[in-house]
Amino acid sequence: MKKKIRVIQYGVGPIGAGIVRLMREKQAVEIVGAIDKDPSKAGRDLGELVGAPDAPWGIAVTDHAGTALGQKADVVVHCTSSYLKDVEDQLLECLEAGCCIVSTTEELAYPFRKSPEIAKRLDQTAKDWGVALVGTGVNPGFVMDKLVLTLASVSQRVDSARAVRIVDASKRRLPLQKKIGAGMTPEEFRRQVEAGIIKHHGLPESVAMVSDALGLGVDEISEAIEPKIADERVVTQFLEVQPGQVAGVHQIARGTCKGQEKIYMELQMYVGAKDSYDTVELKGLPEIKLTIPGGTHGDIATASVVVNCIPAILDAPAGLRTSRDLPMCFFPPSAEP
Amino acid sequence: MKKKIRVIQYGVGPIGAGIVRLMREKQAVEIVGAIDKDPSKAGRDLGELVGAPDAPWGIAVTDHAGTALGQKADVVVHCTSSYLKDVEDQLLECLEAGCCIVSTTEELAYPFRKSPEIAKRLDQTAKDWGVALVGTGVNPGFVMDKLVLTLASVSQRVDSARAVRIVDASKRRLPLQKKIGAGMTPEEFRRQVEAGIIKHHGLPESVAMVSDALGLGVDEISEAIEPKIADERVVTQFLEVQPGQVAGVHQIARGTCKGQEKIYMELQMYVGAKDSYDTVELKGLPEIKLTIPGGTHGDIATASVVVNCIPAILDAPAGLRTSRDLPMCFFPPSAEP
Repeated sequence: MKKKIRVIQYGVGPIGAGIVRLMREKQAVEIVGAIDKDPSKAGRDLGELVGAPDAPWGIAVTDHAGTALGQKADVVVHCTSSYLKDVEDQLLECLEAGCCIVSTTEELAYPFRKSPEIAKRLDQTAKDWGVALVGTGVNPGFVMDKLVLTLASVSQRVDSARAVRIVDASKRRLPLQKKIGAGMTPEEFRRQVEAGIIKHHGLPESVAMVSDALGLGVDEISEAIEPKIADERVVTQFLEVQPGQVAGVHQIARGTCKGQEKIYMELQMYVGAKDSYDTVELKGLPEIKLTIPGGTHGDIATASVVVNCIPAILDAPAGLRTSRDLPMCFFPPSAEP
Repeated sequence: MKKKIRVIQYGVGPIGAGIVRLMREKQAVEIVGAIDKDPSKAGRDLGELVGAPDAPWGIAVTDHAGTALGQKADVVVHCTSSYLKDVEDQLLECLEAGCCIVSTTEELAYPFRKSPEIAKRLDQTAKDWGVALVGTGVNPGFVMDKLVLTLASVSQRVDSARAVRIVDASKRRLPLQKKIGAGMTPEEFRRQVEAGIIKHHGLPESVAMVSDALGLGVDEISEAIEPKIADERVVTQFLEVQPGQVAGVHQIARGTCKGQEKIYMELQMYVGAKDSYDTVELKGLPEIKLTIPGGTHGDIATASVVVNCIPAILDAPAGLRTSRDLPMCFFPPSAEP
């Protein structure tokens, strides 16, 4: 029997916990450590922390990355922040420990425009240590980029691309409902947008990836975040939104080439959305459209994409990769190590 | 400036001609030769043969593969037959000339079950010469396999997969309308099915790829081909079908594991289809469905997938690859060599 894939979980918040539970189902994976800087988690058993029925697992969460990285893992699954500058040192430390990385940091999904210097350092360090890293998830990582590129593989010519994702946040967890501003006044929402608190990260990264991959020559990327105002009362398990209050976010990113729109990406994520779906549309030859009715469930899908990427990142050439480069597939629970 | 990708077209039938026209639009590609065993094509200018407005190109079609392969190409685009045993020697000769190959041979899309020995020889020869080859197209290669695997990247668990493709053949070329039996009596259709003349190739290959990639453990693949009978008169540009006559094919492939159905793939291709679409559906967690309304246009898409695969096959590790391994994307016409 071959050696199992040794994995360390870095960041055990709600998404990290979902990832850990999913990894536990994969025969080929052995979880060998977990890192979380939260002192209330340090020292706890990972299985108990993620609410696993078969806990304890005998894996202690540590707040000291170096201790866990001493375990000689093959892969670190990294879920600590959306911002690349906040995680650069964490990522470098993992690479220098000889680990491949799959990270949910949205700004890592395609960092070459916003953070070319950090991208270069990560790429070089990964190459020096012979490992690969990727930033991915459901979006960025799938709906508005990988799915667009995959659909474009049947295109002879692509003139422009459009992706729209409507998410009904009513059934999502409370932190998400709060994060999108549900129940706020429009004024409070705008203040939080200005303060950088309300924002779905990753749209400009998807625009950049799609532009480069499809050769659309986007030279400017703009982004707007507006409140989605409730026109009727919405009650969720956690909160209530009155008409006139904010139901969630309506975010649009555009990529233009010499002033002409080439890429349009729209995300609506709000409580009480009646029709949720993902669509991708390409103008060109052929004109083609793809729809996922009901949409891709965010929490389930992010954990899936990350865990499903583990075999691909181990197979990838050393360096900084993106979901553009990796063949995306499913990691069967029964797959042999 | 970097060297352009030197390509030889092997087989200049209708699909091959479409591929040649599309390759001509890619700045990074230089077509350096063309092979076709048809004596009426040998010696003709490739540009004229494919009806290019800027013909002649000064590229003579040859019926002698060795002559063209002396051109030291990087890639051979190969479109001569659906059957792997008929093309094995052609493929080996290209590999031994140091060329990567993108082929439309349906049985090459995933040959490991039906033709494991041929697959092994091709893989070994490719590795010996440091090149890679892949069999691909719209189906197999995209709708019923790559799209299924890509969608599965958001899955935590996959219990079964289903793909349905309904194609309206009314607007397709005459050879295709004839190939699907349009206008035949049901008896004649069945005779031609038995003789192996009427058949869409590649469904079992897609079933095998999906089973292996998703870990569905399919141990038996069955296939049925039935006529789709016209219930009203259908008139196309080329022919007429009366009620009771055959309008096209209705083909179903199933993959079962210990008798239980895990994969269902259905292809309906007939004149007068009112609602054409491609759908992929996964049971598991989540339950997810994807639809391409109108469907992926076969002739356009096959040429696209093949040409769009050229950069990917050059980047791939040496050996026999499948669309499962390759990141599929678009090959921008403006991409630099």
